[in-house]
Amino acid sequence: MARTTTRQAGAPGSYQRVVQKYGGTSVADPDRFRAVAERIKRARETYSELAVVVSAMSGETNRLLGLAGELSANPPRRELDVLLASGEQVSVALLTIALADIGVSAVSLLGDQVRITTDSSFGRARIQSIDVSRVEEVFAEGAVAVVAGFQGVDARHNITTLGRGGSDTSAVALAAALNADVCEIYTDVSGVFTTDPRVCPDAVKLDRISYDEMLELAGVGAKVLQIRSVECASRYKVRVLVRSSFSDEEGTYVVPEEQIMEEVLVSGVAFERDEAKVTVHGLPDSPGLAASVFGPLADAGLVIDMIVQTATVGEDRRTDITFTVGSKDLNEAVSIINVVADRVGALGVMQSGRVAKVSVVGLGMRNHAGVAARMFQVLADEGINIQMISTSEIKISVIVDGELVDKAVKALHAAFISAETGAAAEVQ
Amino acid sequence: MARTTTRQAGAPGSYQRVVQKYGGTSVADPDRFRAVAERIKRARETYSELAVVVSAMSGETNRLLGLAGELSANPPRRELDVLLASGEQVSVALLTIALADIGVSAVSLLGDQVRITTDSSFGRARIQSIDVSRVEEVFAEGAVAVVAGFQGVDARHNITTLGRGGSDTSAVALAAALNADVCEIYTDVSGVFTTDPRVCPDAVKLDRISYDEMLELAGVGAKVLQIRSVECASRYKVRVLVRSSFSDEEGTYVVPEEQIMEEVLVSGVAFERDEAKVTVHGLPDSPGLAASVFGPLADAGLVIDMIVQTATVGEDRRTDITFTVGSKDLNEAVSIINVVADRVGALGVMQSGRVAKVSVVGLGMRNHAGVAARMFQVLADEGINIQMISTSEIKISVIVDGELVDKAVKALHAAFISAETGAAAEVQ
Repeated sequence: MARTTTRQAGAPGSYQRVVQKYGGTSVADPDRFRAVAERIKRARETYSELAVVVSAMSGETNRLLGLAGELSANPPRRELDVLLASGEQVSVALLTIALADIGVSAVSLLGDQVRITTDSSFGRARIQSIDVSRVEEVFAEGAVAVVAGFQGVDARHNITTLGRGGSDTSAVALAAALNADVCEIYTDVSGVFTTDPRVCPDAVKLDRISYDEMLELAGVGAKVLQIRSVECASRYKVRVLVRSSFSDEEGTYVVPEEQIMEEVLVSGVAFERDEAKVTVHGLPDSPGLAASVFGPLADAGLVIDMIVQTATVGEDRRTDITFTVGSKDLNEAVSIINVVADRVGALGVMQSGRVAKVSVVGLGMRNHAGVAARMFQVLADEGINIQMISTSEIKISVIVDGELVDKAVKALHAAFISAETGAAAEVQ
Repeated sequence: MARTTTRQAGAPGSYQRVVQKYGGTSVADPDRFRAVAERIKRARETYSELAVVVSAMSGETNRLLGLAGELSANPPRRELDVLLASGEQVSVALLTIALADIGVSAVSLLGDQVRITTDSSFGRARIQSIDVSRVEEVFAEGAVAVVAGFQGVDARHNITTLGRGGSDTSAVALAAALNADVCEIYTDVSGVFTTDPRVCPDAVKLDRISYDEMLELAGVGAKVLQIRSVECASRYKVRVLVRSSFSDEEGTYVVPEEQIMEEVLVSGVAFERDEAKVTVHGLPDSPGLAASVFGPLADAGLVIDMIVQTATVGEDRRTDITFTVGSKDLNEAVSIINVVADRVGALGVMQSGRVAKVSVVGLGMRNHAGVAARMFQVLADEGINIQMISTSEIKISVIVDGELVDKAVKALHAAFISAETGAAAEVQ
């Protein structure tokens, strides 16, 4: 069951229209801008129509947030977006200047100029439409379109941003709108790994991965691609290549499942350290209960991850609901939930800010039983207590003590990936 | 002939709709943003409708130009504008955040959002129109409009900038479009002085000055207000107040001439150090000669200052034309002029990069003869050679050796301003 797959459609010479995206570390300083410009110049030899999406220079977003933080503990979200969008504006201008300097004709375009229209959720806006006519004009002039990632405008011309890592989504959405042959995501890692090599030195790079697997991996903490960018790629069947801007090493293709020739049982072990857990205890069970709990959280724009509801027990028909949120949202979530709990007559609210999520992901799970049982046994053998469990078709996630993440990841990687063939045989 | 004037219309309580402009030194760091926010909060007690125009943080424009300079010796102007406009974008966001933090409702607006439409001369665009409807919406919401200075958009939504100091023009043009009662320009000096106090310690602050005088002063180097902002104020009769953002000291009103109660002979001595002189020698005189010389310079967007053409002499009807440009434009001007000189058959082109212009300005000159003669005598007494002379109704300018500026300014200030009454009597 080899994970390596052939790459029949991978030769760049066959592409005409390509979107490339360069992250903040790829444009951290003038030298790196020059390196990116040279890479784009080479790409122009094979790609006749090229749009490049750029992030803010590494550190710039934090510098700007630092300035805002000195002025207010709670800056208005609309203004934060105006502030942060300047980072990508600087990047597209500098990259276009670097390109001009080596004779590559290019035109910078901001979110408003491309016309990347989003909703009005400042700080986490979602793209609603992209008008590619301006980009196609640039193509028609024979120039490279250098597009600001991360930003858009709402219907009233307010500047919006897509949230951290939003430039990936900008790139994939633009590739979809342009019907590009491939969307190349240049980053500071050389591809998608079976798990984080910093935690587990045995981690290996995947040649290909399906959208669904990538989605589960991205969603649980493999921070190579923003989850929304993968959703977008999946929806529009955008072929994505993740690779390093610091080397010419081959990267990882994120592709439709039908292009994955052999399914593996577990393609990756992912984790999310900064999780927090909230339990609403003793809720009177009734239709609409979950909606009454999660509606207010959604209204506040909080992203809820795992949700578990226990069976209703006892004569008074009470139940518990536990969910996880990112640690940074814990306080806001708890203050909202306290109000909800009062209103619906719950018995109490409990919280824990020191938990983590560990997941195993693989298309092969759909056809093989026993992965969950083996996962729980591996953790038990390591003495790691499981606090919550959640499963999907191709993923099993558990919540464990925040201190035990590394130990859990190493054990699961060893069991499912490093010893892959043996492990697969064992659970069949 | 007292220069002090009364300020009947100056009480802020009588204003309803006001534009304030804060320069880069006024928003150099978070502390200064806070100070500006506090000043705006106080202003809100008397001004019911307030728009605030902000420049980039002091040093930011140079930082951005430095980045561009590392990437290219000759960056495309369009991209420089995209780059530089980010500086004001950061400022409006930060100021709005600082205002929100002290409970002042405010909305930031970029050039594109206000809809400040300009021509497409990147780096020195001119405002064509301002659509104030978005600003008036902000007023209607009871909020302060915080508008990015220095920037606009052309008809194709390209970002443009107005050139250094363009935020003054943004502010005055916005005040005109809004029909504001006053446009307050906050800067790092406390008003308009009779000359630069760093050169001449006897310089005194003017309470009022007319547009025309200010125009001549601004045009010859009193860098308090950008010349275009004064032209704009004059055209639309915008009452401008120049004052310090670091103190509560009264500033200088720049007002229509009819509000100046007593004309002074010389209201100021101005100078421009970084001038260069170009002479086209031995031009065959013919109709259209000047156009053939200055057309190509204008096409290149170069700003020509003084122009002198000598009388045609000799049998072959040849003449000399001498003009001045900013030092930074000298090389470009000379390379253009060399082409022109060849084409029209001139005998030669001479240049000098080390000259300076010194001017005396005053409405009173219109009614008093002898100012020029006295000016030349003062300079002669100091042993300063005059290389070129140019006069207007209310200004006399001379070009002198670049090394002699300070000496010339001090002597002229002493003669015309410090000893004003006597000097006025003498020339009558």
